[in-house]
This record gives sequence, C-alpha cells and structure tokens, in this order.
Amino acid sequence: MTDLLSDLAATVDASGILTGDDIGPRYTDTRGHGSAGAPACVMRPTSTAQVSAILKLCNDAGRTVVPQGGMTGLVGGGTPGDGDVVLSLERMNAIEEIDPTGRTMVAEAGVVLETAHDAADDAGFVLPIDLGARGSATLGGLISTNAGGNNVIRYGMTRQSVLGLEAVLADGTVLTSMNRMLKNNAGYDLKQMFIGSEGTLGLVTRCVLRLQSKPLTTSTAFVGMDDFQSVIGFLSLLDSKLGGGLGAFEVMWSEYYDFVDERCPSLKPPLPAEHKYYVLTDVLGADPESDKERFETVLEMAHTQGLIQNGVVAQSDADRDDLWAVREGAGEGFRAIAPMFTYDVSMPILTMDDFATRAMADIEAVFPGATTLILGHLGDGNLHAVVAVGEGSGESHRKVNDILYGIIRDLGGSVSAEHGIGTEKRDYLSWSRTDAEVEVMRMLKRTLDPKGILNPGKVL
Amino acid sequence: MTDLLSDLAATVDASGILTGDDIGPRYTDTRGHGSAGAPACVMRPTSTAQVSAILKLCNDAGRTVVPQGGMTGLVGGGTPGDGDVVLSLERMNAIEEIDPTGRTMVAEAGVVLETAHDAADDAGFVLPIDLGARGSATLGGLISTNAGGNNVIRYGMTRQSVLGLEAVLADGTVLTSMNRMLKNNAGYDLKQMFIGSEGTLGLVTRCVLRLQSKPLTTSTAFVGMDDFQSVIGFLSLLDSKLGGGLGAFEVMWSEYYDFVDERCPSLKPPLPAEHKYYVLTDVLGADPESDKERFETVLEMAHTQGLIQNGVVAQSDADRDDLWAVREGAGEGFRAIAPMFTYDVSMPILTMDDFATRAMADIEAVFPGATTLILGHLGDGNLHAVVAVGEGSGESHRKVNDILYGIIRDLGGSVSAEHGIGTEKRDYLSWSRTDAEVEVMRMLKRTLDPKGILNPGKVL
Repeated sequence: MTDLLSDLAATVDASGILTGDDIGPRYTDTRGHGSAGAPACVMRPTSTAQVSAILKLCNDAGRTVVPQGGMTGLVGGGTPGDGDVVLSLERMNAIEEIDPTGRTMVAEAGVVLETAHDAADDAGFVLPIDLGARGSATLGGLISTNAGGNNVIRYGMTRQSVLGLEAVLADGTVLTSMNRMLKNNAGYDLKQMFIGSEGTLGLVTRCVLRLQSKPLTTSTAFVGMDDFQSVIGFLSLLDSKLGGGLGAFEVMWSEYYDFVDERCPSLKPPLPAEHKYYVLTDVLGADPESDKERFETVLEMAHTQGLIQNGVVAQSDADRDDLWAVREGAGEGFRAIAPMFTYDVSMPILTMDDFATRAMADIEAVFPGATTLILGHLGDGNLHAVVAVGEGSGESHRKVNDILYGIIRDLGGSVSAEHGIGTEKRDYLSWSRTDAEVEVMRMLKRTLDPKGILNPGKVL
Repeated sequence: MTDLLSDLAATVDASGILTGDDIGPRYTDTRGHGSAGAPACVMRPTSTAQVSAILKLCNDAGRTVVPQGGMTGLVGGGTPGDGDVVLSLERMNAIEEIDPTGRTMVAEAGVVLETAHDAADDAGFVLPIDLGARGSATLGGLISTNAGGNNVIRYGMTRQSVLGLEAVLADGTVLTSMNRMLKNNAGYDLKQMFIGSEGTLGLVTRCVLRLQSKPLTTSTAFVGMDDFQSVIGFLSLLDSKLGGGLGAFEVMWSEYYDFVDERCPSLKPPLPAEHKYYVLTDVLGADPESDKERFETVLEMAHTQGLIQNGVVAQSDADRDDLWAVREGAGEGFRAIAPMFTYDVSMPILTMDDFATRAMADIEAVFPGATTLILGHLGDGNLHAVVAVGEGSGESHRKVNDILYGIIRDLGGSVSAEHGIGTEKRDYLSWSRTDAEVEVMRMLKRTLDPKGILNPGKVL
C-alpha cells in the first residue's frame, strides 16, 4: 500500500492527496445512511488526465475507489470503507463554456449545482436540474445518480439534460462523448450507461448540459380536495389547459398536512385542515400580461367542475415561499418525532392512494401509534414517506422497509424513484427488478470494471 | 441448416415461417441503401416467448439474425445477407393497454406508428413520436433506431418517450423492464442500451411509451430572412416568448427554396424567392382564444427587431399543409435531378451556416454544376442535404460522403443525426466517435451478443 500511496501522490500536486488526520469529516459523512470506514487516502485531482492516472494505478493494484461529489446523497452511495481510495472531484470545478446559440453548458464534474445555476442565469438561461441540496451537490454526482428534484414534470430527470459527458473507466481509459447536439444517432449512446449508475461503471469528469429558456412567470396555487380521483382530474386539467407549462404538482395526504398544522408553528398552512388531499402546483409561463389570469381561469374551471374544494393563489414571491415551506420546511416537526425513516418510491399514479392507505394501515398494525406521513411529486409518479415508530433500531427500520417495499413490489413500483440504490437499498433492488435484469447489470459491471474497483458494494 | 430450419419451424405456427419463394420483396427491400442477400428464412413470431425460442436456437447454431420492423430505415439497418434468419416483428402488433392516468401506452414492437397515433388520439392523448414513414414504421424499429422526426424540439427523440421496454438478448434471455413511471432509479437503466443500437444488442419486443396532452392549437408561419444570425435570433425569440410551445423550427437555405420555386410547379412557395434563408415554424398551444394573437404579436416583434423580412401565417389547415409541402413535398423536383445522395447530419447550431457554405463550395469544386440543397430541423441541430452530381456511381457517392462527413468531423458534428448508422454509414462512424468510444461499443456488443449473431455488420 505504501508503494501505491506514493505512486498516487506522484499523480497530483501536494494538496491533491490527503491521508491520516488530514482526511476531514466531509469524506466520511454518511448523513445517517450507513457507516463509513477509514479510507487509505483522499485523492483530489484537478484534471481528467489525473483521474485517469489515479484509476489506472488503483486498477493495476486491485485497490477499490469510491468517487465522491458533494456528498449530499441519501443512500450511502459515496460512503468509503476501510482502505478505499476516495476520489473527490471537488477541485474539478470549472465551467468551461456556455454556448448561448446551442444552449449548452460545458462543465467539469465538481461544479456545485448552484454555481451552475448562477452561470446559466447570467447567460440568460436556466439549468433545470434543481433540488434542495443545490448548494453542495455537484454536477458529477447529480449525473451519476440521475437526480430528480423539483422540475422533473417539465424538464425530466437529470438524464434528459445531459447531452454529452466524459467518463473515465476503471482501467483509466478516458471516454470522451462530449456531444453538444440534441440529435446524435452515430452508434450506441454510451453516456447513458454512466448516468444513474452511481459511479460503479465509470467516473464522470466533464459534461455538456442542455440549457433552457427562462420561464418569465411562475403561478402558484395551494388547493384542498376530498377524493383522489379529483387530484388526478386536476392534474389532467392543468396539463391539458396550460400547454405543457406545468412545473410542479405536489400532493400531500391529510396526515402530513395535519402534522404540519399541529407540529410546525413557524409554517403557515394556508387552508383549514379539513380536506383529504392538498396539492401545491407551479405553472411556468412566458407571458407576464396574461399568464396569471389564464391560470386563475383554469382554477375556476377546476372549482366549478368540483375537482377542488378550496384554494389560494400566491400573490407575491413571499406568498409562494410560504406555500412551498409547507411542502418542504417541516423540519421542526420532524425533529420532534425523530428518529424517523424516510422513503423515496415511485409507482403508477393510479395506485398511489392505494399505496398510501395500505402503508399507513400496515405500519399501524405492526407499530401502533406510529406516525406515517405521505407526500410527493404526484405528477412524476414519485412519493416520499416519513415514518416514525418511536425508536430507530435497525430491526424496526428493516420491518418498515419490508412493509413499504412489499407494497411497492405488489404495485409494480420502484424502491428508488430518484435517490438511487447506494448501499441502503441494495437488499431491495430485486424487489423492483427481475433476476434477468440484475444479471445483465452484473454483466455490464464485469465488462466495464472487471476487477470491481469502482464504488464497491454500491447498487449491486 | 435443415435441422435448424425444422427446429425454427417448430417454434411458430404454420404462417410463422417463410422460406424460398414465399419470402416476399418486403424482407429484402433496401430502399436503395445497399443490397440484400437471400435470407434462409423469415420468422414471424407472435409472442416474446417465440422470439426467445428463435434466438436461442439461432444463437446455439451460430446463425445470424436480422431483426425487421416496418423496413422504412434509410441506412440499410434491416437488410439481410445470404443465409441470415430474418426476424420480423410484424405480427406482434397489439396495443395492450392505455393508462389515461399514468399517460402510458403498453404495446408490442410490431405496432405501426400510425396505429399507435390513432389509439393515443382515441384515448385523448398524443404519442409525440412522428415522422413521414408513420404508415409503415413500427414502434420496435423506431425505438431500435431512436428515431427523430417532427417533434424533437418539443418532445425529444424517441428515447425520451420510452419509459420501459422488453428486449430479448441474443441467447434468448428475456429482459423485461416494463417500467411505467417517469422516475425510476433502481439500478442501471438497462433499456437505454437497446434504444438506438439498431437491433445489434437485443431485440425489442414490447414497450411502455409516454403519452402527452393534446395541443389544442397549432400556429404556423413561413418567413424569409437575410442573414443567419437573424435565423438564430428568431429561434431564440420564439423560444423565450412562447413558453416552451415551439413545435418545429425548420430552415431552408435559398438554394433549396429557389429549387422548389423553379422545379416543383405543384407546390406553392408563399414568399418571393429573394431571401437567403426561409424558416417554417409551428407553435403548439392550449388556449384557442389567445394563442394565435400571441403568436402574431411575437412575429410582429421579430419583424420590428429586423429579424424577419417577410412572412405569412397559416389561416387554415389547408394553408398549413401548403406551407409544410414546401418543406416536405419536393419529390417531383428531386425526381428530375435523380440520382441523388441524401444526408442526415447534426452539428452545433452556430456552425450550421458554415457547414452549408462549405458543403456547397466544396462539392461544386469537385463536381462543377452539381446541385446541393440544404435544409433541416435547425432547432434540433439537424440538417439534411440533397446532392445530385449528374450520376449515381459508388465512387461519386463516396467522394461526396468524404466531403460532407469531413466538414462534419471538423465541426464536431455527427454523421448521423436521426437515421442511425446501419451499413451505409458504418465506414464513417469513427469520423464522429473516438477510438475509445468505438472500442467500448465493441465491448458491449461482445458482452451482450458474444457470438455476434444479432444484426451482423450493422453499426460496427
């Protein structure tokens, strides 16, 4: 190992390698998802050539490598074990170019999402990948996990914003596929393999991202409704009447809304807590003169059709922030019921109410008095669940996992909608994928990383 | 071979296998792109299980298999050689289910695109994959080639409409990934490998497609402009002012427009032939009351800003058809200059005018008096070129290829935007992709099809 360490040190400048006590807590922070070991070293390369040299050395030595981005993942995907070489892309953080005509951004993998947002904004565009961890998450990590987030219903998952990328294979081969065009059918679209495979097939070093025109208006409403068919009907109405402008369609089951109403005194739930479902929706537009009126006309239509019982429309940015805080800012309430288990699952939209009903009942049956809160991105087929059973033992966690993922399996859903598999969901991968699928994943892994050095134990 | 044929015959019903003179011209029609051999037989399975049995037999026997959809491809991707087993999906043509809530269609690979359009329409939705060959092209072929077409700027390539699929590997393994959710990050997204790989990695048998809300309005304009920066500026203005409603943005260089004006008496070019560039644009909307007015306001703005010199707006569906015919219906003119070579390339938008100028000049230098017409989907970075040099010899074809693909290589473009590689562009694959990329494609091919039985000689 000493030989390998000195060889690794020779690939980078003095601050490009950290060992021993110099390895800060950043590199072993699991955010409560599993536990980390003591890495042999942390490599902080500044170029693709350095990444290639590091991987070649590790591959020749059979040394396992754990790639790290902003360390904001929620499934232990960047957690190192004892003796691993951590490869952090944090110093590869240049935005190389923005092409306003082609609407593309070329950037290194270590660029923090918010920095990329700002650069896109300065150029008059929007980079539509967005999520709460925007201040720390990096482009490479977002691509490696095919991150979802706030704008999926309009702009798709991260995959849809990636036009090209550069990845380094386990043996150090640099695979440069920095395509800038919307259309390119010249051979296999290799970049797809590295998007969402959590650093297990190759290490993303650079990317070409698609930028979008800035929406000029955002209209926001928070409504209450009494049956799930109306929730679906409202989604359908918005989508058909607003010409693809739907930017977010978030649903909260009443248990969550009531919880916020009772346990989060700093929030301002806008409606009386008397409905069964609450929907928060954003509609993006480009016509400041008429968009708001048009939005309110459609809301009126929804009310007349009996789809929504009650609702408020944001009249200002402050209003909008208050409404979104009800959906996203329940931290104070959660802290009061901690420890809790959180879930990120997807399923056909039609089965969502069934999922919620069964989840609450089945957990109550095993853990009487438990708190089960359901909310999520209904428009994307993605729900989140927060479960607190009074204690946080591994055994209870497993029991709740088995209950919820068992329902997901019945419904043909996915145990991971947007967070990935990492180490945390690995045991449940086969609950959403067939044996043949898992075997083909293993074949791909063996082909691209025959010694199994890349992010060992993650996904598979 | 006789043993294999009788084993193959046993996998299907009597009309599931064709041999000898029963093999109709459909199965060897190359549409002028290369030449076909005499296949050993044509298999016409009716189920995934049959496809699996056929592939297993062929793989065990080391017999090559050529998958076929609607046979509308333009690069020889479905062309069989002597002794190949043709596997046509034409009888797997059921639309299994439409889920109006999840907005998904589940269908077999042999469904003809137009049939799928009609079914989506009946359910109140639109399946946005669309192209001229809609009456013959099948879903499996569209997926296997990642077809582009008319709606890419709004809805993306075929890849973006595929939520799930089922594919059969060379050895008969059935890989069922019939995901129905917009979000699913449970392990590698295996379906991506089969999209756009032209049947060389596996055979698509079924799919889950994403449906979209029907646009309620379409506004169409045909405008003339005098410099390329204005073309780009007009695209940018439409995109920013019309909230993502842009459905098509087609550009024609003056040489093409003048050609239509002179050689296509049945068409009705709407503007005097005095501009350098012509743009045909569709904008999709959802508000019948105000969309047209809004569109005309933006056109007025473009005129005031000096971006467009002249233009007409379609006042009826018949008007729209006439305008689109100028872009798509120049067949009578083409026939007069045949034989011709046609091209489908992509490049960064900013370099398009450079491409057109160089292409016309370089071809003229080698073939004085040649006709070179440039037009295409500018919004997608995709241009088509039609070149007639007075004769159609292989040598001339190769010379024109070398000229055009050489420019594309210089500009960082792609030798195939939407048609794929097939056999026709195979020699030029390395002009758009690096050696490392081609080697990884070969690795994937060896992994998934170790005996190389699937669509041999295509792509790689």
